[in-house]
Amino acid sequence: MTEIITSIKNPDIKYLRKLYRSHRRRREEKFILEGTRLIEQALQAGAEIKQIFMTPDYDDSLCKKVQKDEGIKITRVSRDLIEEVADTVTPQGIIAVVDKPSWQPEDIFTGPKHPLLVLDRIQDPGNMGTLIRTAVAAGVGGLIALKGWVDIYNLKVLRATAGAVFSIPFLMRVELNDFLNMYSSRDYDLYCADLNGEQYYYEPDYDKPAIFVIGNEARGISEELLQKADYRIKIPLLGEIDSLNAGVSGSIILYEYLRHRQKIK
Amino acid sequence: MTEIITSIKNPDIKYLRKLYRSHRRRREEKFILEGTRLIEQALQAGAEIKQIFMTPDYDDSLCKKVQKDEGIKITRVSRDLIEEVADTVTPQGIIAVVDKPSWQPEDIFTGPKHPLLVLDRIQDPGNMGTLIRTAVAAGVGGLIALKGWVDIYNLKVLRATAGAVFSIPFLMRVELNDFLNMYSSRDYDLYCADLNGEQYYYEPDYDKPAIFVIGNEARGISEELLQKADYRIKIPLLGEIDSLNAGVSGSIILYEYLRHRQKIK
Repeated sequence: MTEIITSIKNPDIKYLRKLYRSHRRRREEKFILEGTRLIEQALQAGAEIKQIFMTPDYDDSLCKKVQKDEGIKITRVSRDLIEEVADTVTPQGIIAVVDKPSWQPEDIFTGPKHPLLVLDRIQDPGNMGTLIRTAVAAGVGGLIALKGWVDIYNLKVLRATAGAVFSIPFLMRVELNDFLNMYSSRDYDLYCADLNGEQYYYEPDYDKPAIFVIGNEARGISEELLQKADYRIKIPLLGEIDSLNAGVSGSIILYEYLRHRQKIK
Repeated sequence: MTEIITSIKNPDIKYLRKLYRSHRRRREEKFILEGTRLIEQALQAGAEIKQIFMTPDYDDSLCKKVQKDEGIKITRVSRDLIEEVADTVTPQGIIAVVDKPSWQPEDIFTGPKHPLLVLDRIQDPGNMGTLIRTAVAAGVGGLIALKGWVDIYNLKVLRATAGAVFSIPFLMRVELNDFLNMYSSRDYDLYCADLNGEQYYYEPDYDKPAIFVIGNEARGISEELLQKADYRIKIPLLGEIDSLNAGVSGSIILYEYLRHRQKIK
């Protein structure tokens, strides 16, 4: 019979609880995922799941899938305990510990076919996750999350990506200077989304490999980065409104680039 | 000296607390706004603020603005009490009660210049608010929120609109049949965002007044409404991902329409 863990002092549970602190996840290079849907999406996208905690009665089709995978350690945990540990109010009885994929700059800068997305000090986990999700959908070749504000380790970010983070190469917590070095040694154009931009987002020809930068919701892109821009692009605002949501701005721009590259209309 | 209310039994506080229940807000046709930024945005957009509750020490420039307006009743409330009543953890010491604007179908259907946006059973308040915010930015002439799931009265929706909801005519809690009657008696094309759509969103000519429908995050647009569509439009998904965020999908489509109508490129 499978052992069911009920004690918060169990070593596996103690380890899991540590991972709920972001600096520990960072040090251990692990992500945590909660809930059937997200874990299923991650699995589909090829995430390296190390361990799964589930309630004794958890019997989804997902359960059968992960049981087949010998690389995944399955630990049955009482419902009370899983609810105590989890971040979401109703964690659906399943939590996964996943290895953070390990990427290099060469995985990200793959040439003209795939633009890059740089996230500069995004504040809201939902926006960050949405941008990652759209990036994958729009064929972006890689992500760079600059150091500061929300981190990709954040559970809410992972949730908002809908698992997409596992199907795109990314570098996270990158120092601005390191990014600028990567950029300046390669033949890419740098497009910064900027409310005070000189051009509308549909005006550039987008004829070179492109890097798009989306900045903080209130303050935009840092001045230092903005000064390196080849293009500062803006989105027209017709109504009485100051700005668009950061996730929306980035998405509109990425899809316009896609339309351009595909020479559609 | 101004009276400072400290008791939860004060009639004004009792009324305010009632308005924190959505069915009461609906019946009273009132919105509640919390925090300096949102109230400032609402004021700027011409919202009809009836009453403002603020802490004794609240002394923002907003305070001076509302004090000048004789139509606004200002009530000073102790910090403890405002924190007890408010929905946000840090309500910044200010809550406003606002009249729901009263709109008619004629305010919404204003002809070829301005498309309409219909929200069908959107589930997430953030998505709903984001769509309203983008609609205003993209020059949409009016909104129709069909009955079901999240309502525009929801505080999180209002927050995500960033005040935009006060600068666009809208009808809310509209029955599907009532909407279909409004639509069929007017010369508009109905564009439904649909993962299984027949055309990409940049393919139609958009040469007639347009109504765009965005549906539920998981289930999409209701079958009954989908069957009335003149165009079922989809957004290409290149990466390993099932769908885009609903707020993002709607935003991409609305901006493509804007680009088309302005004959840009």
